[in-house]
Amino acid sequence: MTLQAVLDHIDEDLPKATDRLMELLRIPSISTDPAYSGDCDRAADWLVEDLHSIGAKAEKRVTPGRPMVVGHLPGEGTPILFYGHYDVQPVDPLELWNRDPFDPAIEETENGKVIRGRGASDDKGQLMTFVEAVRAWKAAGGTLPPTVFLFEGEEESGSPSLVPFLQENAEELTASLALICDTSMVAPGVPSISSQLRGMLKDEFTLHGPKMDLHSGHYGGPALNPLREIAKIVASFHDETGRVTVPHFYDGVHEVPKDQLRQWEASGFDERDYLESVGMRRPHGEQGYSTLEQQWARPTLEINGMWGGYTGAGSKTVIPAEAHCKITCRLVGDMDPDAVRKNLRAQVEAQLPADARVTWDTDIDGAPAAVMNTDRPEFEKARAALSDEWNREAVFAGMGGSIPIAGHFKEILGMDAMLIGFANEDDRIHSPNEKYDMTSFHKGIRSWARILDALSR
Amino acid sequence: MTLQAVLDHIDEDLPKATDRLMELLRIPSISTDPAYSGDCDRAADWLVEDLHSIGAKAEKRVTPGRPMVVGHLPGEGTPILFYGHYDVQPVDPLELWNRDPFDPAIEETENGKVIRGRGASDDKGQLMTFVEAVRAWKAAGGTLPPTVFLFEGEEESGSPSLVPFLQENAEELTASLALICDTSMVAPGVPSISSQLRGMLKDEFTLHGPKMDLHSGHYGGPALNPLREIAKIVASFHDETGRVTVPHFYDGVHEVPKDQLRQWEASGFDERDYLESVGMRRPHGEQGYSTLEQQWARPTLEINGMWGGYTGAGSKTVIPAEAHCKITCRLVGDMDPDAVRKNLRAQVEAQLPADARVTWDTDIDGAPAAVMNTDRPEFEKARAALSDEWNREAVFAGMGGSIPIAGHFKEILGMDAMLIGFANEDDRIHSPNEKYDMTSFHKGIRSWARILDALSR
Repeated sequence: MTLQAVLDHIDEDLPKATDRLMELLRIPSISTDPAYSGDCDRAADWLVEDLHSIGAKAEKRVTPGRPMVVGHLPGEGTPILFYGHYDVQPVDPLELWNRDPFDPAIEETENGKVIRGRGASDDKGQLMTFVEAVRAWKAAGGTLPPTVFLFEGEEESGSPSLVPFLQENAEELTASLALICDTSMVAPGVPSISSQLRGMLKDEFTLHGPKMDLHSGHYGGPALNPLREIAKIVASFHDETGRVTVPHFYDGVHEVPKDQLRQWEASGFDERDYLESVGMRRPHGEQGYSTLEQQWARPTLEINGMWGGYTGAGSKTVIPAEAHCKITCRLVGDMDPDAVRKNLRAQVEAQLPADARVTWDTDIDGAPAAVMNTDRPEFEKARAALSDEWNREAVFAGMGGSIPIAGHFKEILGMDAMLIGFANEDDRIHSPNEKYDMTSFHKGIRSWARILDALSR
Repeated sequence: MTLQAVLDHIDEDLPKATDRLMELLRIPSISTDPAYSGDCDRAADWLVEDLHSIGAKAEKRVTPGRPMVVGHLPGEGTPILFYGHYDVQPVDPLELWNRDPFDPAIEETENGKVIRGRGASDDKGQLMTFVEAVRAWKAAGGTLPPTVFLFEGEEESGSPSLVPFLQENAEELTASLALICDTSMVAPGVPSISSQLRGMLKDEFTLHGPKMDLHSGHYGGPALNPLREIAKIVASFHDETGRVTVPHFYDGVHEVPKDQLRQWEASGFDERDYLESVGMRRPHGEQGYSTLEQQWARPTLEINGMWGGYTGAGSKTVIPAEAHCKITCRLVGDMDPDAVRKNLRAQVEAQLPADARVTWDTDIDGAPAAVMNTDRPEFEKARAALSDEWNREAVFAGMGGSIPIAGHFKEILGMDAMLIGFANEDDRIHSPNEKYDMTSFHKGIRSWARILDALSR
């Protein structure tokens, strides 16, 4: 059985593979909204059936939330696990979609064919690249490593059942290496292995002032205004060079080695295009660091939401009783989420004026940054396979986002992870008119076929 | 005909006067909600009938919005106009009311009897103190100054029809002096004439950053965050002494003369009680000024609303495309609203970083501060009459709020205004469980009876 035969089969089978993906995309498996709970079940059932069709044993496994799908395919060599998620983001605002988000279609665009629909890129399309690669190998009668499939249904709602599920099923799920397909390429056509992910810390506070909302005529002047106070606190989080002022914030942050930086800058990442595509002419992060460093290798403290007082149409002469702020920090290197939270909270509390107090959200969350173990031989094998498929040197790239699953695999199962994805930055994931390039889907399947081939040697 | 006979009549007639007020309070004349348009008409009709009952010629006058009620009572001496408004605030949140807002009742409280219901204090109860005083004088066969009644039905929705109505009916409405009953007493039992009102400027802006909402993982670092930028701008509006930093903001602000300040401080205003009632231990305005000065005689720049990003439950890792801010300034002395707006906007725009822009609301509004002409002999007459009724020296008080009608009377009709009201700070106007003290109602009627007596001499 030759790799070429498998690749030929993939090319021939692409229309049917696309039809299968379209079927899965038609199931509105939104995990954040209980109204779609039944649809999540249907998506899980569909995947169980599809795993059966490629010869795997598979079943839907109950959790307190949406079900997991676990499948097993026997094989030879070093066992692997493949992870993807079948749940999708909500579709609001629906009026900004050019079509029903759950009636997917192939569309011609100036950049080629795309599959348009919610979940096409995040993560059903990516998940199916791996399944289709396995199908092609099986159809061609080839041998694969022993493979565990783990499809989650709660990734878009914070994965509440994931850690307990990994703990309770540790033995069954532990392989030698986890493959994760939920990431992007550095630039279109540049195959990418994510070698480091930023961690994340989230926190939220309410600043309380007067006992009740006050009339800004009768009380304006003497009254403490929580909106003014929260603005002062938020404005204090960064200095004029864009550096975060929280004490000890940069403890555990390491400078990127020069050779890695050179490799990143040569990866095909187009800074100008990246900035212009979102309406910016220059990067706005820490001065002295490149856009890529700011995005992949530097920590951030971002305000994701801030509000208080009257926010409707027209005017209301109110001094509100409270103001609110949602924060996330992206963490790198050895930054400790708990230490960052403690120092962040202390900085906020130190700035409170008389008659103000602060309350903190208790639904807190934090995960440190993750660096992949790229010394493992599988990384070089995958890099070579990707380079062959895309006819372009594959790169080890950083990533600005956070994928806690890689950390969970390591901590709970002692299993390294390798993150390879074929999404593009313009896929509009989490937004209206999400799409997945047909090239990503087709060459993604072919990429996994090559990687599976390389891993089984 | 002696004043004493009129006061005796008022005391005897109080139960009936209260019944009349209750009738008016039962009409839900909410002017901001078109659903209550018919009720506003009913309230106007009720007032027309009630003016007829005291011998006035009166009619409902059409405007593009809610009707005006205009009445005329012939008399002798210097003509006066009385202004009040019959419309009321909405009642939301209804669940915080202890009774139907439009089923008023007399309740016993630890501070004495109160009339509970929407509009009891603002402004139906206050309006009726004057009408009842006139009724008593007429019943006792006494003579009054020629009196124009002007009852507005849009005060709570920004008085859109008022200025054109005054312009179109200038000759009919111009008297020598306008009496306005829509203000509070400095402290319970301290009769008060409002001698100065702050003006108001409102403005609103949106700070635009990225072209679209961004993922704070993929873009956090390089991306401009409008919430951080708006916080910096809002934090820049005041210095560490509480002084507004907008250039030329204090042009036209005058220090309060020492003797006036002494009079204010001796007026019975209880600073500690005022602050504690809203949960504050100290005033938070400009350092170096007393609470009363901060409230009555100093200008403010307040944030009434600020928002952007994700404000729902839980977390969303977003860097929003825009952030919003609603501002009102209270103006004093000779501050020019247009100049303040211009300088405020310039200060905001000067702080914009690259890739950010600001848009301003076009629904702007501004009115300068107003100082009453207390040199007119009527002010001293009213002060003496109030002191007699309340057995306590009446005071000329400042006021933190803004009542544009006084300025309109002066500018359009060339008519001075005298603002006398009997509300208390704890009347919960605009809030659930609004009330008017029975003492305010009863002694308010008696006060007007004494003032009318003094003015006709």
